[in-house]
Amino acid sequence: MARTVGIIGLGLIGGSMAIDLKRREYAGTILGVESDPVNAAAAGKMCLADEIVPLDECVRRSDIIVIAIPVGAAVKMLPGILDLCDSDKVVIDTCSTKSQIVRAVHYHPMRSRYVATHPMAGTEYSGPWAAMPNLFDGRACIFANTEESDPRAVKTIEEMYDVLNMRPIYMNADAHDVHTAYVSHISHVTSFALALTVLEKEKDEKHIFDLASGGFSSTVRLAKSSSEMWVPILTQNHDNVLHVIDTYLEKMKEFRDAIAEYDSERIEDLIHEANRIKKILR
Amino acid sequence: MARTVGIIGLGLIGGSMAIDLKRREYAGTILGVESDPVNAAAAGKMCLADEIVPLDECVRRSDIIVIAIPVGAAVKMLPGILDLCDSDKVVIDTCSTKSQIVRAVHYHPMRSRYVATHPMAGTEYSGPWAAMPNLFDGRACIFANTEESDPRAVKTIEEMYDVLNMRPIYMNADAHDVHTAYVSHISHVTSFALALTVLEKEKDEKHIFDLASGGFSSTVRLAKSSSEMWVPILTQNHDNVLHVIDTYLEKMKEFRDAIAEYDSERIEDLIHEANRIKKILR
Repeated sequence: MARTVGIIGLGLIGGSMAIDLKRREYAGTILGVESDPVNAAAAGKMCLADEIVPLDECVRRSDIIVIAIPVGAAVKMLPGILDLCDSDKVVIDTCSTKSQIVRAVHYHPMRSRYVATHPMAGTEYSGPWAAMPNLFDGRACIFANTEESDPRAVKTIEEMYDVLNMRPIYMNADAHDVHTAYVSHISHVTSFALALTVLEKEKDEKHIFDLASGGFSSTVRLAKSSSEMWVPILTQNHDNVLHVIDTYLEKMKEFRDAIAEYDSERIEDLIHEANRIKKILR
Repeated sequence: MARTVGIIGLGLIGGSMAIDLKRREYAGTILGVESDPVNAAAAGKMCLADEIVPLDECVRRSDIIVIAIPVGAAVKMLPGILDLCDSDKVVIDTCSTKSQIVRAVHYHPMRSRYVATHPMAGTEYSGPWAAMPNLFDGRACIFANTEESDPRAVKTIEEMYDVLNMRPIYMNADAHDVHTAYVSHISHVTSFALALTVLEKEKDEKHIFDLASGGFSSTVRLAKSSSEMWVPILTQNHDNVLHVIDTYLEKMKEFRDAIAEYDSERIEDLIHEANRIKKILR
């Protein structure tokens, strides 16, 4: 079947989807929309899309429209895209927060053509140059509020993510935002704060480079993530993120106090408790 | 040359050294000392050492003695080992804090036979099963207070770490403890606290497993580290670690406040500042 997939935003997520949907023959044609001219030129040269087209044309010609841009812009763009849709098209987004975007189109007459998803894969890099094959293999993809979507539209998107080798998980949008605050958003905030701490204190940058062993690099890796993506996530998921930060600050203070008091037993208990993460993650 | 290297503690560090020093023919014989009987049996079966021997015998028969056990135990053990040494032997430790251990033997009559080192390599795993070839390749090895050691002893150890493909960096023990507080110790504390936060809040552990993408796993990886190793590090490097934790808590609060106030510009500034870590780390 010569399905046409339109991808709005050919960055890390959109570009990586483009590669695998085309290679794995789910899409006959990939149409790309890219507002940044440098990214558009690069995405074209890298063959992430068969054509780079304007937004309207993309929606008109595509069977599936994927919105893969930062969540702030996606929330603004989605209603207008649904305005252009007929009941043969399916629109999805890939954003990292879900409550606000599903709320933005809750009463839209074409709401049932929209499927809210969050493929939980990525790296700390962005732009078309960050796109890579196999990015999604084996990871989870959240489907949020599928009861608001046409079941056939959901099925189409399930098939698409199946081609990307993702495991679907179904969840309410608000629950999604709580869970991702814990397993994704807080990790980014702690990495940013760690980078700021080390950069402020280690004026002699050579020492960071010389001494940073694998542990530091992996803990601080997410601090390379872009503000374009993360400012809207952190402000949209405001309440949950603040709640997690506050719990986190309490835990840090428990550690701080145990160390301040040379309380080896308490430190040991805290580390043993933290080690339980091994039950969950390899 | 049939050099004999005695390694006290055949865990991640000691065991990995044993493998490469033997394979790369720096050591003719590896003598291992392992107080834990299960570890000793495993290390023997895995051929990490040619023989497992008692401590006294290890010191007597070895040309180089490597103390690769948690720093609390190492500080207690080092003076007694130097007591047994003559001026043909060299003793080193591989511990992650250096001030206290160099202070413990500052006035020891055999001080010059001791070289304080910290090979900055490792993983979050421990014990002989964590030992692996090539662990040290390309990483930095700190030599602390070499002016207190016999230059020939230093040279011997430089040659040994050269075989392990490590870059030597020379530093005062106190400076070492400041720098490692920033680039290693704080990363572990933030990972432990992150694990505690997520474990406390995500009662439904399945969701952590399902949703944790690469970002979370890498940030929380160090939370698997052992209390045996980390309690003594955090208590010995008390002042520096507390100082860094306090700076870190300030940075977290800056983030918290910017998010609480929906201050997108401030969040963006903080992220841009944190992104500067890219200048230093790939």
